Amino acid sequence: MIQPVPIDQVMQQAAAAFLPYQRTSAEQKALFLEAIASNIEALGDALITQASAETNLPAARLNGERGRTTFQLRMFAQMLREGSWVEATIDEAIPDKNPPRPDIRKMLQPLGPVVVFGASNFPFAYSTAGGDTASALAAGCPVVVKAHPAHLQTSVMVADAISEAINSTGMPAHTFQHLTDASFEAGKALVQHPHTAAVGFTGSFTGGKALYDYAAARKNPIPVFAEMGSINPVIFLPEILSTQSEQLARQYAASISLGMGQFCTNPGLLIAIEGEGLESFLRHLALEISTVIPTKMLHAGIHQAYYTKMKAALAEKGVQLLAQSAAIPRALEAHPAVAMVSGELFLQHPLLHEEVFGPYSLMVICRNEKELETVWRSVAGQLTTSIMGTDADLTAHRSLLEIAPSIAGRIVFNGVPTGVEVCPAMVHGGPFPASTDSRFTAVGIQAVKRWVRPVCYQNCPDALLPEALQRYNPLGLWRLVNNEWSIR
Amino acid sequence: MIQPVPIDQVMQQAAAAFLPYQRTSAEQKALFLEAIASNIEALGDALITQASAETNLPAARLNGERGRTTFQLRMFAQMLREGSWVEATIDEAIPDKNPPRPDIRKMLQPLGPVVVFGASNFPFAYSTAGGDTASALAAGCPVVVKAHPAHLQTSVMVADAISEAINSTGMPAHTFQHLTDASFEAGKALVQHPHTAAVGFTGSFTGGKALYDYAAARKNPIPVFAEMGSINPVIFLPEILSTQSEQLARQYAASISLGMGQFCTNPGLLIAIEGEGLESFLRHLALEISTVIPTKMLHAGIHQAYYTKMKAALAEKGVQLLAQSAAIPRALEAHPAVAMVSGELFLQHPLLHEEVFGPYSLMVICRNEKELETVWRSVAGQLTTSIMGTDADLTAHRSLLEIAPSIAGRIVFNGVPTGVEVCPAMVHGGPFPASTDSRFTAVGIQAVKRWVRPVCYQNCPDALLPEALQRYNPLGLWRLVNNEWSIR
Repeated sequence: MIQPVPIDQVMQQAAAAFLPYQRTSAEQKALFLEAIASNIEALGDALITQASAETNLPAARLNGERGRTTFQLRMFAQMLREGSWVEATIDEAIPDKNPPRPDIRKMLQPLGPVVVFGASNFPFAYSTAGGDTASALAAGCPVVVKAHPAHLQTSVMVADAISEAINSTGMPAHTFQHLTDASFEAGKALVQHPHTAAVGFTGSFTGGKALYDYAAARKNPIPVFAEMGSINPVIFLPEILSTQSEQLARQYAASISLGMGQFCTNPGLLIAIEGEGLESFLRHLALEISTVIPTKMLHAGIHQAYYTKMKAALAEKGVQLLAQSAAIPRALEAHPAVAMVSGELFLQHPLLHEEVFGPYSLMVICRNEKELETVWRSVAGQLTTSIMGTDADLTAHRSLLEIAPSIAGRIVFNGVPTGVEVCPAMVHGGPFPASTDSRFTAVGIQAVKRWVRPVCYQNCPDALLPEALQRYNPLGLWRLVNNEWSIR
Repeated sequence: MIQPVPIDQVMQQAAAAFLPYQRTSAEQKALFLEAIASNIEALGDALITQASAETNLPAARLNGERGRTTFQLRMFAQMLREGSWVEATIDEAIPDKNPPRPDIRKMLQPLGPVVVFGASNFPFAYSTAGGDTASALAAGCPVVVKAHPAHLQTSVMVADAISEAINSTGMPAHTFQHLTDASFEAGKALVQHPHTAAVGFTGSFTGGKALYDYAAARKNPIPVFAEMGSINPVIFLPEILSTQSEQLARQYAASISLGMGQFCTNPGLLIAIEGEGLESFLRHLALEISTVIPTKMLHAGIHQAYYTKMKAALAEKGVQLLAQSAAIPRALEAHPAVAMVSGELFLQHPLLHEEVFGPYSLMVICRNEKELETVWRSVAGQLTTSIMGTDADLTAHRSLLEIAPSIAGRIVFNGVPTGVEVCPAMVHGGPFPASTDSRFTAVGIQAVKRWVRPVCYQNCPDALLPEALQRYNPLGLWRLVNNEWSIR
């Protein structure tokens, strides 16, 4: 018999771990994150085998994703050691100002226990020990992960690796906790619990929006960073279509079908102006798509949703199938496909603006530049948008470049949106519904900013200040002192 | 006959101004903000006379507040000229990485039109051209201000000063708009309008929470930064009470009654452990409060709410009046008062945790340190919390210092919470309900961060990048390039 998950006990424990965990030094936290990374690596092929069995993802991809996960953990460890991320800001007292200015010192501090809901499509990098967990632990927040039911055993293995790291590095008990209750009610209770200070989520719009609504309806609303996917519109400009249609088709067929389209950055919407260039592109794209070999999707639910959503999209007025993979998909396999529709009809049918999670993309054929711009602006907030064009194309369409930032968090030039580099300049986030707060990114060191808040100390005796703010800068941080950057 | 306010037209105009205003240079925006400051100064005594007539605030206070307002505007102008606030972050391409790393460049960009609801108690500094407006304009967001009905004519004068600045500095029409419709429905419609990208609010919990709820219930939720006041708990530790009770009483009586208590940082809750020191403090505090001379409150609504709320608090079980001003208040004047209650009863009665906006404070008398800590932790999120103690007190109560950051955005040592310095290290904000998002401050240059989001450009041709991100750093900003700070 399965015991009901003691959500309240879990969150009480997380809250009790908050102060003791905060008290550990940056170096101790860095060692903790590095130990998690090493432990995950030490799981070796067993982890890959388990994850592959649960997600149908190939070993090569999973090995790469594990590398990304351990890289992220070590990146946050490095950020902690360097230390300046706390944004220490000091304004020294000016006693003879009228009125006298007190001594004021500010730094970022953790929010409290963070609840993380991992992604089905990234069993490592955006799940149990993924970006949300790593950034929250780096921030100084205890983390409670609700395991994704689609890769529960993988999640348990990673959670055990984290628990071992807690023990070996002497972190407080319950700094990290792992829940295997797959129920929706458990997730709701976690978001609603008074001790929960913030929520990280990667997944569907329906799931993320439900959590956002629960958090907003609390007596004390809490921040939710939900990354809820996108259709990632791609604009193909005229000159590049007429000069490089074959290469573009190859590049985009590969991006559409990469990992059976199961990426939140999958290019689900292609936009271009009618003409010979586009016709050539479509011929090549159809050919490329027909040669894609179907593989299994992550799980039966996603597989079924893919066909249901694709079918609904194809049933909309004026939507035509351009091409499908020539192979007949077997059980759980996706059937890669590209459809097309006129700009006019796209604008009339909101269903066509919705994500079809999988190897599917819709080509929107516009009559002219004005319609292309209207179509582009009509989409909701996106993680990415891409512009494919020659130098002449781009120069001739400068007005599009000015619009792009209002559409997405990342603007890709002459590339595909799939592939998210983990680096300080990366933005993985965007206007709603790409994410619930466009002011933050889920990837890169800045992801830590989701889980912290500034706190300032006025006239605090030096010895009682956090080290980051003490007069002689014992941690050697870059700090803004009297409005000038200083490392002394 | 009053025409209904065309909210939709106003927001359409704000949206139309967004791109043109964004396109203006940092220098142009700086000149605009400086022109606003100069125009407000040029209004001279007429503005002070008008504001004093509408708010009952004395001329000296209003002159000081105007100085703060123009200082803020010029501070943001200086921030724009220096420019590094956009957090330009560059990761150059690494072609031989596997897979190759693209060139990625990130900077902060404005969210879009911001709607500002000014405060009744700061007709200049947190109203029409106050901190929210100045920071949003600096961010590059068009601003729509809904004038506070309690100082409508003052607001009109300031709005005219802004309009003149728009004309004289050649800013796009509708970069700033001013609505004089006082209705609640107008405010609701502004928050719900599809073109509204974010909201700034300073005022009551009821007002701020209503706007937050409207924003969260939108089809696309938007950020609301509502600063909704506090009771700003103050802890008096034993040794300082037994050695400096008279001085503490003088200091706190002055802070409680400053501006008739009409500050969001007013110390509404005093906490101490019973004993001779406290008894001495209470005797002195009673004496000091009895000598406070009542003056007029801001308006009839606030005046009535003060008496209603104070009466309700005094009617709670075990609450005793410690002292009241000896003078009998006349029309619209507040009656300064301090009450007291035991820690036990305070913990039992949630109403005592609520703000009584005005010159009122509640002393909570605790039996021991444990109860003091329990009382302190029981309060909701605060803008400030203060700790009064000798060096020995503070050293003996280190555990309190660790708790303080979870209570408030600003922790004051041996001072009063009233008086908010405008400087980079200031945090004016705090856990809910002090504000709706503790990750931001409403005061200081960091206030601009409420209205911006990161956007990154991947493999964008250099000439098409925003200047802040171009290779040769034409704006001379501090930028994080390949994870190292550089000004080249």
